[in-house]
Parts: sequence; structure tokens; C-alpha cells
Amino acid sequence: MRVSVIGGSSVSSATAAVAEEVGAQLANRDHTVVCGGLGGVMEAVCRGAREAGGETIGVLPTDRRSDANPHVTVPIATGMGHARNALVVANGDAAVAVDGSHGTLSEIGLALAHGRPVAGLDTHDVAGVEAVETPTEAVDYVESAVGGE
Amino acid sequence: MRVSVIGGSSVSSATAAVAEEVGAQLANRDHTVVCGGLGGVMEAVCRGAREAGGETIGVLPTDRRSDANPHVTVPIATGMGHARNALVVANGDAAVAVDGSHGTLSEIGLALAHGRPVAGLDTHDVAGVEAVETPTEAVDYVESAVGGE
Amino acid sequence: MRVSVIGGSSVSSATAAVAEEVGAQLANRDHTVVCGGLGGVMEAVCRGAREAGGETIGVLPTDRRSDANPHVTVPIATGMGHARNALVVANGDAAVAVDGSHGTLSEIGLALAHGRPVAGLDTHDVAGVEAVETPTEAVDYVESAVGGE
Amino acid sequence: MRVSVIGGSSVSSATAAVAEEVGAQLANRDHTVVCGGLGGVMEAVCRGAREAGGETIGVLPTDRRSDANPHVTVPIATGMGHARNALVVANGDAAVAVDGSHGTLSEIGLALAHGRPVAGLDTHDVAGVEAVETPTEAVDYVESAVGGE
Repeated sequence: MRVSVIGGSSVSSATAAVAEEVGAQLANRDHTVVCGGLGGVMEAVCRGAREAGGETIGVLPTDRRSDANPHVTVPIATGMGHARNALVVANGDAAVAVDGSHGTLSEIGLALAHGRPVAGLDTHDVAGVEAVETPTEAVDYVESAVGGE
Repeated sequence: MRVSVIGGSSVSSATAAVAEEVGAQLANRDHTVVCGGLGGVMEAVCRGAREAGGETIGVLPTDRRSDANPHVTVPIATGMGHARNALVVANGDAAVAVDGSHGTLSEIGLALAHGRPVAGLDTHDVAGVEAVETPTEAVDYVESAVGGE
Repeated sequence: MRVSVIGGSSVSSATAAVAEEVGAQLANRDHTVVCGGLGGVMEAVCRGAREAGGETIGVLPTDRRSDANPHVTVPIATGMGHARNALVVANGDAAVAVDGSHGTLSEIGLALAHGRPVAGLDTHDVAGVEAVETPTEAVDYVESAVGGE
Repeated sequence: MRVSVIGGSSVSSATAAVAEEVGAQLANRDHTVVCGGLGGVMEAVCRGAREAGGETIGVLPTDRRSDANPHVTVPIATGMGHARNALVVANGDAAVAVDGSHGTLSEIGLALAHGRPVAGLDTHDVAGVEAVETPTEAVDYVESAVGGE
């Protein structure tokens, strides 16, 4: 399936390591990563997925595919700014949020509005988000939530 | 100025009364309401604003202007579904959130991402949202936050 | 009703005079102008409509309302670039095209795809566009085409 | 590179055969097809590309990936209706138009507005579109137009 991974565009190395591990786990279980295509959590999750041989879709806010981080295999240019956040989550079957600020909060809201299950790793404490402790738990959760539908 | 009022599409009569009062206060102070154009908080705030002689812009998720509630003076059809949430908040100078669920959460995130001050009335407890108790306090807050920029 | 007026963003004074007269005629007949909010035909049609006391909605490609020309009464910021062209024509009941280049061509296609009647003044020669000679004929055409539905 | 292939959603078998050959030629030359993801020319070009081992991105008007034709390898759900036409052409380096009606006309306009070279096979006669006779000529044209930039 596809999993949207959302999170801050500028993060600590510890947070990046978590996102990278989420990407690796998703790829190892044959899932495709969807993200916003830029830096921070977006870049780390793509790097992790690519190193594990996975695919990564980056739905960019700009109209330039070249703005994608180097680990995006399918950049999608939208030129829509923050309005593209809706597309990031609509193109996944579930979402994993890692850290993040206002943009991530909007994506959590949009994911829930679209009926997508959301696992959260050290992110906003919001009703409807399943707070988990590790990348493995995050991927376990979204797999079971989607599989159980 | 313009103030985006965001909140649930299906609300209690008590919540609707709060939203209606927000609309009345905004109109009385010569502000224009921007909202998502549909029911619940959106309809109540428009009704309050209209009864006080104000203007109301409804940015609709559908491509039919006729889907707007009857108190919208300027319906804008987008046909973009939840992606229109970004336009609801981008078209205000500030936002007031009243109650609300996932869609409202996404609009709070988008408003903050756009740098808009947000007052909250019985809504999501999110960092960056100024929790207030009354419609008057909400309008006072957004006026001072925008005026003080 | 609402009429979308589409055309070039940089035009000759003769073309601007035509667009201005279209705006005046629409306002005199109590129609609201919808346009892309910027310069050229967009500015001229708004100026004409305003001088005749009409309303003008400008659906902007940028996320800044201040980018609207001074004759727009309701600026709508989209931040969506050319993707906003679809909203320009979806928000009118019919369209009048004046001159114009590639963007205008796209709006003609989108208007026809949305089932809107389109009158053309010295614009692209496209099947489905009613070529007319004067602003009066353009407004007559869209009135009768919408009225006859 | 990526080439957006645009055209009618309901076409004759002769037109479908042309679109299929365009897809095959693009894939044989290692280009990725971008299209609107639905039927007619969109489906035929994807089928041709897939049979030649190529990749196909389908930028859908709906919010359901399952609406993509079976030959789309990367469906992108937008839920934006005709506004997604801008994304179809913005995500290619060039475009090939095959037949088509109003939607295609809008995509031609948007492609030209984005500065993309456009080859046309039995499509709208529009200034800026290079009219060609065969799929090979269409692919030759877009390759040279992009390569020569």
C-alpha cells in the first residue's frame, strides 16, 4: 500500500534518524512512501526507503520537479503551495506523522478528514492519532488499521 | 479586515449561537467573514454577520455556487474538496476557530502555516491558538494581533 | 448573473478599451464580473465595471490579495498559479474572451469543458466560441445563452 | 524525460491506435508518460507505454486512485476536477496532443502557458502547437524541442 509520511521540513538528526527508519521499514514491507518531497522528515524518510529499495512519491508545493529531494523517485509538481498538503495525504492509504509543526498539523487534520488512519511518533497530541513509540510500531499500526478495514 | 471563521459543519445549537455572535461582532466592527460556505458553524457565522449587515465569502469544496448556505454573499466554487481548506484561511487576515473536528484542525494548521493569528473558542488545544472564552474576546484578539503586526 | 471575462494580461489601449466597455455593459445590466484579478484585460474590465457601479471578483494566481488590480472589489487569493484558471471560469455562468494568449486559450477550454457559453471578441478561433464584434453583442450573447438554458 | 500526452476521453479505435503508438514510442526512447489517468487517449497511451515497458503517471481529477485506467503505474489522486489539467501538463517537459475536445484545448493552453513545447496529432489548430502526421514525428519534435532549450 501507500503510506504518507508527514513531518517537519527542518529537524534534528535524532528525528531524521527516526524518519529514515520509518522509510526503511515501509520499503522492507513493500509499501510506497508518499511525502511532500522537500527536506527534513520528507528527505529522511525517502532516503531510508530508497536504501531499502523502495519507491518514493514527492508531492511538491512548487511547480518545479527539481525542488524534490534527491531520494524522491516520482516528483509531482503542483505549484499550489500549502494547498498541496491535501494531496499528500489523499494519495496514501494511511499516514505516519513524525514530529512537525503547523504544516504537519494540517496534514494530520486532512488525513483524518479523508478517513486515513494516522500513527504519530513524537508529534501533535490530537484525538484520532495513534501515538506510538517506534517506527516498527508505526508501520504495524497502519498495516493493521488499513488491513482491518 | 477579513477574518476566516472555521468550525464544524454539524454543531449544537449552543455552538451555533456562539458562531452567530462571532459573525455579528465581526460585521459590527466592519470586518468581512470568510468561511467554507456550508452548514454548521459556517452557516451560523454568516447568518450573524448578515443580520448585522456584513459581507460573507464562502469558499466551497464543490463546483456549485448553489451549495453555499443562504447567508453567503459571495460564494466561490472551487471543486477541490478538502484542498480548498487552504484557500479558506489564506483569504483571511486572521482566523477564529469555533469547535470543529478534523477539517477544522487542518484549517488551524494551515492558518498557522500561513502566519495567521488564530483565536479558538472551545476548539482544538493546539500550540499557537489563543484560547478565548467569548466571541468578543476572539474578535478583540484577532484585531490586536493583526493590528500589532 | 456572473460573467467571467478572460483575456491577455498585457494588451493594447484599443483592446483595453473594448474590455472596459464589456465591464461597463455587464455592470449596467446588473451582472458581476469574475476575472483573474491582474492587469491588461482583467484590469480594464474591472475598471469599466466599477465606473458603472458593478462588483468585480478577482481570482488571483498568487497567495497575496494585494496583487489584485485596484478595481477588484473581492480579491480571492489562491496561490495555485495557472491551476486557478479553472476557478476563474467555474465561478461565472458564462464567459467573454477578449484577445488573449495561452492562458486565455486554457480558460476558453476550461469554460467550454464546464459547459459555459463563451463569447469571443477578437480572440482564439475555436469551435464552441461565439465570435462577436462588439461588447454589446458579447453581453447579448451570454445573456441569451444562459437565459435559454 | 517526461511527456504529457493529452487527448479525448472517448475516442475512435483509429485514434486510440495512434495514442497507443505514441506511448510505445515514448517508452522505447525511455521517456515517462504523464496523462490524466482516465480512458480514451489516456488509456491507449498508457497501454502502449506499458507494453513497451515504460512508466505511466496518471493525474486524476477524482480523489480515488482506483479510478485510474489499468495501465497507470503511478496514479495521483487530486480531487480537483478540471483544475488538475494544470498539473497534467506541468508535470511533463513537453506535451503531445492527440485529437481531443475542450479539456484537451485547455491542456494545450496550459502547456503553452507553462512554456512546454506541444506536438499535435489531428488536434486543435492552435498557434504554438507543432502539427505532425505520425507518432514518430511527435516524439521527434518534443525530443528536439526540449533538447534544444
